[in-house]
Amino acid sequence: MTGGPPNAGPARLWGGRFAKSVDRTIDDFTSSLPFDQRLAAHDIVGSMAHARMLYEQGVLDRESAEPILDGLSALLSGLEGGTVSVQDGYEDVHSWIEGTLIERLGDPGRRLHTGRSRNDQTGTALRLYLRDEVAELVGLVSQLLETLRAKASEHTDTLLPGYTHLQRGQPVSLAHHLLAHFWFLEADAQRLMRAHGLAGTSVLGAGALAGSPHDIDPERSAELLGFERTLDNSMHAVADRDYVVETCFACALVLVHLSRWAEEVILWTSAEFGFAQLDDAAAKGSSIMPQKKNPEPLEVLRGKSGRAVGDLMAHLMQLKGLPLTYNSDLQEDKEALFDALETARAALTVANVVVQGLSYDADRMAAALYGSFVTATDLADALVKRGLPFREAHEQTGAAVRAAEEAGVELWELPLDTLRACCPLADESIYAGLDPASSVAAHDSFGGPAPQRVREQLERAVTARDAIDAWRTGRVEPPVLRAHRAGTLSQSERLAVEDGS
Amino acid sequence: MTGGPPNAGPARLWGGRFAKSVDRTIDDFTSSLPFDQRLAAHDIVGSMAHARMLYEQGVLDRESAEPILDGLSALLSGLEGGTVSVQDGYEDVHSWIEGTLIERLGDPGRRLHTGRSRNDQTGTALRLYLRDEVAELVGLVSQLLETLRAKASEHTDTLLPGYTHLQRGQPVSLAHHLLAHFWFLEADAQRLMRAHGLAGTSVLGAGALAGSPHDIDPERSAELLGFERTLDNSMHAVADRDYVVETCFACALVLVHLSRWAEEVILWTSAEFGFAQLDDAAAKGSSIMPQKKNPEPLEVLRGKSGRAVGDLMAHLMQLKGLPLTYNSDLQEDKEALFDALETARAALTVANVVVQGLSYDADRMAAALYGSFVTATDLADALVKRGLPFREAHEQTGAAVRAAEEAGVELWELPLDTLRACCPLADESIYAGLDPASSVAAHDSFGGPAPQRVREQLERAVTARDAIDAWRTGRVEPPVLRAHRAGTLSQSERLAVEDGS
Amino acid sequence: MTGGPPNAGPARLWGGRFAKSVDRTIDDFTSSLPFDQRLAAHDIVGSMAHARMLYEQGVLDRESAEPILDGLSALLSGLEGGTVSVQDGYEDVHSWIEGTLIERLGDPGRRLHTGRSRNDQTGTALRLYLRDEVAELVGLVSQLLETLRAKASEHTDTLLPGYTHLQRGQPVSLAHHLLAHFWFLEADAQRLMRAHGLAGTSVLGAGALAGSPHDIDPERSAELLGFERTLDNSMHAVADRDYVVETCFACALVLVHLSRWAEEVILWTSAEFGFAQLDDAAAKGSSIMPQKKNPEPLEVLRGKSGRAVGDLMAHLMQLKGLPLTYNSDLQEDKEALFDALETARAALTVANVVVQGLSYDADRMAAALYGSFVTATDLADALVKRGLPFREAHEQTGAAVRAAEEAGVELWELPLDTLRACCPLADESIYAGLDPASSVAAHDSFGGPAPQRVREQLERAVTARDAIDAWRTGRVEPPVLRAHRAGTLSQSERLAVEDGS
Amino acid sequence: MTGGPPNAGPARLWGGRFAKSVDRTIDDFTSSLPFDQRLAAHDIVGSMAHARMLYEQGVLDRESAEPILDGLSALLSGLEGGTVSVQDGYEDVHSWIEGTLIERLGDPGRRLHTGRSRNDQTGTALRLYLRDEVAELVGLVSQLLETLRAKASEHTDTLLPGYTHLQRGQPVSLAHHLLAHFWFLEADAQRLMRAHGLAGTSVLGAGALAGSPHDIDPERSAELLGFERTLDNSMHAVADRDYVVETCFACALVLVHLSRWAEEVILWTSAEFGFAQLDDAAAKGSSIMPQKKNPEPLEVLRGKSGRAVGDLMAHLMQLKGLPLTYNSDLQEDKEALFDALETARAALTVANVVVQGLSYDADRMAAALYGSFVTATDLADALVKRGLPFREAHEQTGAAVRAAEEAGVELWELPLDTLRACCPLADESIYAGLDPASSVAAHDSFGGPAPQRVREQLERAVTARDAIDAWRTGRVEPPVLRAHRAGTLSQSERLAVEDGS
Repeated sequence: MTGGPPNAGPARLWGGRFAKSVDRTIDDFTSSLPFDQRLAAHDIVGSMAHARMLYEQGVLDRESAEPILDGLSALLSGLEGGTVSVQDGYEDVHSWIEGTLIERLGDPGRRLHTGRSRNDQTGTALRLYLRDEVAELVGLVSQLLETLRAKASEHTDTLLPGYTHLQRGQPVSLAHHLLAHFWFLEADAQRLMRAHGLAGTSVLGAGALAGSPHDIDPERSAELLGFERTLDNSMHAVADRDYVVETCFACALVLVHLSRWAEEVILWTSAEFGFAQLDDAAAKGSSIMPQKKNPEPLEVLRGKSGRAVGDLMAHLMQLKGLPLTYNSDLQEDKEALFDALETARAALTVANVVVQGLSYDADRMAAALYGSFVTATDLADALVKRGLPFREAHEQTGAAVRAAEEAGVELWELPLDTLRACCPLADESIYAGLDPASSVAAHDSFGGPAPQRVREQLERAVTARDAIDAWRTGRVEPPVLRAHRAGTLSQSERLAVEDGS
Repeated sequence: MTGGPPNAGPARLWGGRFAKSVDRTIDDFTSSLPFDQRLAAHDIVGSMAHARMLYEQGVLDRESAEPILDGLSALLSGLEGGTVSVQDGYEDVHSWIEGTLIERLGDPGRRLHTGRSRNDQTGTALRLYLRDEVAELVGLVSQLLETLRAKASEHTDTLLPGYTHLQRGQPVSLAHHLLAHFWFLEADAQRLMRAHGLAGTSVLGAGALAGSPHDIDPERSAELLGFERTLDNSMHAVADRDYVVETCFACALVLVHLSRWAEEVILWTSAEFGFAQLDDAAAKGSSIMPQKKNPEPLEVLRGKSGRAVGDLMAHLMQLKGLPLTYNSDLQEDKEALFDALETARAALTVANVVVQGLSYDADRMAAALYGSFVTATDLADALVKRGLPFREAHEQTGAAVRAAEEAGVELWELPLDTLRACCPLADESIYAGLDPASSVAAHDSFGGPAPQRVREQLERAVTARDAIDAWRTGRVEPPVLRAHRAGTLSQSERLAVEDGS
Repeated sequence: MTGGPPNAGPARLWGGRFAKSVDRTIDDFTSSLPFDQRLAAHDIVGSMAHARMLYEQGVLDRESAEPILDGLSALLSGLEGGTVSVQDGYEDVHSWIEGTLIERLGDPGRRLHTGRSRNDQTGTALRLYLRDEVAELVGLVSQLLETLRAKASEHTDTLLPGYTHLQRGQPVSLAHHLLAHFWFLEADAQRLMRAHGLAGTSVLGAGALAGSPHDIDPERSAELLGFERTLDNSMHAVADRDYVVETCFACALVLVHLSRWAEEVILWTSAEFGFAQLDDAAAKGSSIMPQKKNPEPLEVLRGKSGRAVGDLMAHLMQLKGLPLTYNSDLQEDKEALFDALETARAALTVANVVVQGLSYDADRMAAALYGSFVTATDLADALVKRGLPFREAHEQTGAAVRAAEEAGVELWELPLDTLRACCPLADESIYAGLDPASSVAAHDSFGGPAPQRVREQLERAVTARDAIDAWRTGRVEPPVLRAHRAGTLSQSERLAVEDGS
Repeated sequence: MTGGPPNAGPARLWGGRFAKSVDRTIDDFTSSLPFDQRLAAHDIVGSMAHARMLYEQGVLDRESAEPILDGLSALLSGLEGGTVSVQDGYEDVHSWIEGTLIERLGDPGRRLHTGRSRNDQTGTALRLYLRDEVAELVGLVSQLLETLRAKASEHTDTLLPGYTHLQRGQPVSLAHHLLAHFWFLEADAQRLMRAHGLAGTSVLGAGALAGSPHDIDPERSAELLGFERTLDNSMHAVADRDYVVETCFACALVLVHLSRWAEEVILWTSAEFGFAQLDDAAAKGSSIMPQKKNPEPLEVLRGKSGRAVGDLMAHLMQLKGLPLTYNSDLQEDKEALFDALETARAALTVANVVVQGLSYDADRMAAALYGSFVTATDLADALVKRGLPFREAHEQTGAAVRAAEEAGVELWELPLDTLRACCPLADESIYAGLDPASSVAAHDSFGGPAPQRVREQLERAVTARDAIDAWRTGRVEPPVLRAHRAGTLSQSERLAVEDGS
């Protein structure tokens, strides 16, 4: 064996049957402490719920439960206050917590693991952590929604071309355009809330895979954790990672949506489009070309969509072909998840800063409405209103566009007889609808760009965001954590009274 | 230009402005007809709703609407009856339908496209199609759930080891094991229903990107299609593919879950495990090794998890960096989606056949409960019940396991004094809990493997599946399609009466 | 068992030990015939090599070998001439070929499978097929390289801005820009040739997994197939799919590279850039907006990069965790591979058509050289040449850019005293280097955009493409196929004489 | 603007034109320093080559070049000796190095960036770093190859079943099995060396995108860096990341191959297979089930295949649709690459430790050769040798297997008349070839499992590994780094003499 010297760190929780210590290389490779230490606080909350349930069920007596609950509270306060930090050399953060508790409390500490396993413990901590992180992402999405909505509300009359195939298509307002991105992100908030909900299944009580012979109460554990439901099947509970993969998926879509928006900002801030300008504080310069103002944050953000999708790919592939129940491949879910969460958090934060600082050049936008016949469809529609079948109107309009293109004029600048040569039903009154502003005003179907319709849409946007914020406000902290915040065991008793439990 | 001769097929819908025909190579490359023709029926349904709404709004008069609705009905009946089939040479199925209608009806056919674009038309057909396909997948999941539940209900007392790390861990029942897979798939059904819901946003009325200047009623279109809601923003409606990517994701997870189950069946039907045997009708032989009975369907199924994930990756990557609104990259969403749907459909069907034909070898399973100390945790828990802290109990049990291993006996065969040398609190009564059946019976926490708990779980399984079936039963056909089934325009008038609309 | 009626098709090659026929659903699911029938010709070539080797080794006598070789030749001619086609109902194309041969020849046909298995047979056919397809891709890359090179050679003096961050950076020539894409694709050709080489390991002789007890000669089989080397280890040979995954990877990179080029063409043909115009034969129109000329082929191509990467992901995931040797998961490699090859083929063909038809607007390109201070770096470099440290020169130039921006003039329009206020070392002579053409001419480092350097580069491009074409010309047909082309067994004897073998 | 306070760190290299400092949030988001500081030493080496080339070309005079080269050497020594470390607050490591140099040297430091840009500088550092890392991976693969070969050489006569479909197929030796994995990894070494070669294109001289107007010599820079060739086109050089994506791909395949091997070790160390046992130092225990010995390192390794493929996915997606030349999306390539390299490094190291410590249970392996008719093919082949067509022999053997299965005996235990009832050509002598050892000995085709063939294979393995080691030994350090190791500028002059350059 040449991989490295044996591990000289803290004792393992399972050494009893082994003749040798674990090789250092192997130990480093399989240790999750470097990345799972961020779960420390959430593991403690999970442990509090477990201990309290054990006490309520009489599995732990008061002499054990009290020091355990106090000890966990003290450890949590220490972590939060910065007076305690996770120590190297443990297999994972769960071992560190249990080890520290045993060191501090002796015998009672050794009783905490009664009726649970690292499998359900890890799942509990990860679910608690994920829910907090996801709630924060929902908050960031909400902020960005508000920023977009506010910007949009200023621009119901700022016109620009809407594009298909990156070709100018039809006139719309900037408000309408910005709100399109609003709805993408609103759907992301829904998806994140859904992942939050999915993670709200308590797996405390699944044990290693087969539940427990002790008189535990998984439903009470769920309640103490603020979870909505408890496990249906102990083996499924241990093997299931749907909540992780759904969260990775939700983060990936956030990034994919932001990449679409970022692409547009990059286009719009190019010299060629010139529709927008980044705030100096949101751009970068060049180390060699002094004239450059580069939309780097947008490019990095666009690139990070690959990263978030890579995280999703990684986790889906890890799950492939895994037999029941726990396999250590699942340990890798954490880094993929953490990276996806961080990527989404950073991207949303940056997007918000960029949107806030972005200034629009209404003149350049307006100028882009000319020369590309963006109201050709309006001509076709006007002909339809005069009785022509749409398909013929479309063809006649094509001919009119060709005529205008050859003459180097706008559609509305075509002399009536030229226009009529293409579109026999055309009359003087048809010109009125061909300028961009008239076009936008006329497109007043539900969900369309007409100012009145956009104002309705802005109201729907407020309602939609309010619902998201209401979800955030309504989200409850785990009761066991509330008890900790209020004090220690005596407070937890108070909780019992308050809850009537 | 050497790519190929110009396309000599049917006229395009947009030729007016172009001096040349499209190169044949380009035409083949951009044509979606080879794969989107499966949308034909759904496109017709979408067109019916559009035409009917136009008529109700007065945009189309009776002289146009009647032949259009009758023509669409006739075309749909022709497709369903096999007397009509999609013709080659069109750009896409939408062009074929409009072209055919024009050919058959003349002038009225040219009026159908009033107030819509191929963008909202494609989205409508795709959403309708996706919902039907997804509903069928939900049905297949439901069947598989029932097969698993029924099998499980026969095996609440068939014992085998539960595994972690592919090492024997603790005894469970086969029922409990099978139900673990039940819950994975139950979650898949939820995810599919969610994707179905997400697709229930009507985009008819988004137009090319800017809605319509005609007096259309998108909410009425939604109603006629049986959709739950209508678009919020015409640009978002055209650019959004969340419903496609969510469906691909749901299919990918179905496959990933099935790959985990397939892996187990492959293991279980190996000579080494011998826990199960495939029905001859669900296995394949070898062209060279006559003794082989190969679990090929399970392997193909496991491999197809890669395929479904590949489809998801393809689509996520396609979406990256796409500016608003429509870009033809989105055309590629269809083949990824279709492949994901077909892969899920075939996999679910095959899984159902395999589960039905699988026979279990209870003796081999029982034998696997010996020799691996699968009740060691029970010994530890028994010591805890005798007052020992869990962590010490765990260590003492490790020593007992080592003693038993060295002696080549089961834990319950250790002489009491040997056992006591490891576990001082052990007494005669402790042996009773160490056989596998006692262990399973004792693991009676909620969601655990004890027979009574599994029976409760089986009831929850019935309830969960009933809810899925209720969803399927409650799913409504698009009203416009119901009208078609009942007759043609006069029937659609009857519908108006029935609906009070 | 309710999956479907038993399969009623042709007898399986392995029925001997099975009591029941395979369920129809299972049969359809595991059958590879729908997609592997494209391997028919290559399987026959593999079989010819195998039969001939068996004959040369004395494993088959003349009475068996002659009809087999003649029969295979006849079948191949039949397939090539369209008089024979693969029949439904077989498990795979290999079964069809063997079955057909047995049907036609009786006893000799039953001897062909001596000393081989479907595992090495499939691998052989797939490798032969892959090599032909990849060689064709190399040819398509070569054509595109030539098209790019030829276009570039016309534009060594057409200037436009080079971009970083989609911001105008420094002037370059269009030739230089087009050649940048040349080198991406030249690397793709290298990658494809490498995949071709990797597939040139003959696995004929690996048997099912353990080689053969017959006196076979795998090296002779390799030689007859035109392969460069033979297997090292029979188990590795059966389990290895590196050649498939490398080909998928090479195709994915082709598409990724083309997506970058496609993005640029989409940008350049937008109204905002206006640098290029698609030939009418390579663009599409809109069904609703008559003025549009959409770069759809480029968008579809860009989207297909997701598809090719999805194929790669699918296959990598399929390979994960597969134990030795053959597992039917590997059957799925074919569809991923075929899709990747077809996607690359179509994309390269289309790209060639597009490049050929693309016309450039030199005026719009030239205009883009103004207003963005693209020669700011030249000013900095001129100051460096006058002795200023670069970092100071960069700062001073930044100030000059700001001054010019505020004054609304080009850098070279700044009055000397204003310029000197920013850059004290500036003198009259400095202006000469600040116009775009001077800048390009001055950037004459190796690999730079100066016309002379680009002419050198064009020569290197010729050399590089010649090497690729030399590889294609030098590629040898499998000797056994040459023998077939020349006649049947007596011709193969002639081959033996010719080859001195 | 509310993203955060402005950055208060070191001055940017490009501040000249900007009115505001960069927002802190944006700065953190776009800074690459947290991850690119690992490139510090390699960036210095790149800078040394650049400075030296500038000096040799007369672009820098001795008064500037000497302090720069000495300063870079001092900085490198400081980093290597641990007396200097990268400081926070810079945009990237390149800025830190240039900033530190300017701080230390004043004017000469400001001259280093003459004739280069961060784009070619970053590419240079990344290529140098990648090559060192990849060379180390090749070394780790080589070690693992040697470990596998050495193990294999001990087991040419240890027999076990070879598997297809996880069903026992034919007998092979453990040596042959281990060598199958050898060849997978040998191909990985080839792929890594290829990625190393691809990275050996010097991009120093590409400038920001358009080369340089100074009299630089990119070929000399390449030579000083130990690179094999120089850029063909400055724009391609800046935009190209093929070398990164090829390295990610090579790492992904290393992991995929190891996942296949890991799967087998997991299977083999299960109670059911029992073919192998992990060294205690390479396994982990359970926190709750004291009897467990879990193959965690193998599971983590198998899971990491998803991670490495995720990194590849991330980078491919990042590249999609990027226009020329540099876009900051490319900044994200580094973390994907670094993660892929680290994952491969850890996995290879751990695999080596595991293989070294793995002990095999020859008895369990031998026992698995019975009861599954693994020599059925030998019976078929023996019948073929007696003149029967293979396809009939296969069928007859199937019948014999069925007879033996029903009788509950091995094939060779069937009475001759029973055997003859199935296989009329069978005679007494046929039994001799049916035991596993005879079967293995008889499978003596090239690359087969017969001991003599395996010994030949072991020799090929030595040759193959020697070639890899020869590559590693022949790998040259960048001459400019050799000069640094030997002293500073005067030593670099000595280098010039030594090299005759």
